[in-house]
Amino acid sequence: MPFSQATVLDVLDLCGVAVFAASGAVLAIRRGFDIVGLLTLAFVAALGGGVLRDLILSQGIPVAFDDPNYAVVAFLTGMFVVPTHRLIERIWRPVLVLDAAGLGLFCVTGATLAAERGLAAIPAVMVGVVSATGGGVIRDVVAGEAPQVFQHDSVLYVIPAALGATVVVTAHGMGQLNLTVSLCAALGVTALRVAALHFGWHAPLPYRHSQQ
Amino acid sequence: MPFSQATVLDVLDLCGVAVFAASGAVLAIRRGFDIVGLLTLAFVAALGGGVLRDLILSQGIPVAFDDPNYAVVAFLTGMFVVPTHRLIERIWRPVLVLDAAGLGLFCVTGATLAAERGLAAIPAVMVGVVSATGGGVIRDVVAGEAPQVFQHDSVLYVIPAALGATVVVTAHGMGQLNLTVSLCAALGVTALRVAALHFGWHAPLPYRHSQQ
Amino acid sequence: MPFSQATVLDVLDLCGVAVFAASGAVLAIRRGFDIVGLLTLAFVAALGGGVLRDLILSQGIPVAFDDPNYAVVAFLTGMFVVPTHRLIERIWRPVLVLDAAGLGLFCVTGATLAAERGLAAIPAVMVGVVSATGGGVIRDVVAGEAPQVFQHDSVLYVIPAALGATVVVTAHGMGQLNLTVSLCAALGVTALRVAALHFGWHAPLPYRHSQQ
Repeated sequence: MPFSQATVLDVLDLCGVAVFAASGAVLAIRRGFDIVGLLTLAFVAALGGGVLRDLILSQGIPVAFDDPNYAVVAFLTGMFVVPTHRLIERIWRPVLVLDAAGLGLFCVTGATLAAERGLAAIPAVMVGVVSATGGGVIRDVVAGEAPQVFQHDSVLYVIPAALGATVVVTAHGMGQLNLTVSLCAALGVTALRVAALHFGWHAPLPYRHSQQ
Repeated sequence: MPFSQATVLDVLDLCGVAVFAASGAVLAIRRGFDIVGLLTLAFVAALGGGVLRDLILSQGIPVAFDDPNYAVVAFLTGMFVVPTHRLIERIWRPVLVLDAAGLGLFCVTGATLAAERGLAAIPAVMVGVVSATGGGVIRDVVAGEAPQVFQHDSVLYVIPAALGATVVVTAHGMGQLNLTVSLCAALGVTALRVAALHFGWHAPLPYRHSQQ
Repeated sequence: MPFSQATVLDVLDLCGVAVFAASGAVLAIRRGFDIVGLLTLAFVAALGGGVLRDLILSQGIPVAFDDPNYAVVAFLTGMFVVPTHRLIERIWRPVLVLDAAGLGLFCVTGATLAAERGLAAIPAVMVGVVSATGGGVIRDVVAGEAPQVFQHDSVLYVIPAALGATVVVTAHGMGQLNLTVSLCAALGVTALRVAALHFGWHAPLPYRHSQQ
């Protein structure tokens, strides 16, 4: 049996790391950072969400510091972006799809780890959302920008991640969480985010813009 | 005996969560965030200080992720702000009093937990201050603002929290820490902050504004 | 034997705390913060990198909260800057040298602790870099500025720290890590940063500035 479930999830997890590292590197180029800033932002975007997740779950050293593969993938992706960023920006839609896949996977792995750690349903969903969105928020804050998640694409980020994490946590509570459910949840999150991007969905504003 | 000391403290702790969640939600409305951004900011403001506290004390999963009540209270408070925010802004003074109460309670519970964990006096006071102010700082940073705590109301925040935590840690060191002392410290912090707001107290600047 | 190796390292570590506390205090004065904001920023800059390091290594309460000396040194340094900041700014070069020494020491102690904790080489180097640069990044973010590390002096910060941490981790892997190697690595980082400042070295930009 060449691939176990854990192997598949690990590979997909590292794909998510690569995509988020690319997002950090592209942001660094747009902001005019030098090569060191680019690599730093790639690391932060790729590893930040998982480190937050692991600190909350308090099970020892975060996997991003325990398994060197995470750093290697983030580094290589950042270096790959340097000569290819014009091409990447030209094919931005495929990148966004991969980014959505990263969102889906990280919310699934985060919620799975939290449920297996014994967290209640609502906190486990929160951990999934933090895993999937934390890297992007830290990336934006560290780059000196107001986090995008709050301003233009909340629907694209938080809602799909929360829904995917809810599916995972519910399945875990029913004893039905397996690789198929995990992949379906990750794909559903990805599809929902891509649809939100394609159709320009927005969350409602909680007020009317009037004065000031 | 209907209410134990722990129950009273837990109830007051959740009141603090509610008030800080409201502060995050009101800030989100002022910044033009959508409903998802509003809820995210409410969670961050309400739970951030306690999560920092629990990470520092390193006693396992932070209570905000271990006890679902924290997330439920933050969520319901955020949703409650949506239709009522005009009213809340009109009665801003009562809200500020409740916010001061949250500051008082979080510095007391943070310092108590730190002293019981065996920290020395000065670090235990620091944990109390981090508990009481951390949520607000994270709220502002994540919202893309310079943290308020540094600019206009340091006196309103850090000094009362440090004094209240000092009272708690001193009483703990003397073996005299009980619910009465805790409540008095929390009330004292609240009163000090309300007085600072009412009388417009400011901390001295460490220099003279002259050139540049 | 008056000084053990551990004592020497502890003393140098506290020197690093003092220098980074001074950097936070000077930044606070430039930004117009009051005395409370100044002390807060001094604490954040001096203790932030070490707290991040200790959270990642997950060995219990961070040393900055376990050993009161760290807070005392940060507080006294911040108070010392208040009456002397004009003089400090006039002799800015010596301060920068001390700051470089802090960078060197923190990357060495961080990488040493990580290697002794059993981390692989690449993650151990990352911990060294986080230890040395984390306080400055948190200082800038909390002060409402884009972190300097990304914009003007990446070469001054990240590259020397990464090289120094690499030396330490390599020596540890060969069983050759002792106080002499540690001090040489710290001095090398310091010299490299001072040279980068003196000669105005910059990291290459990963693209050409052209449009927009």
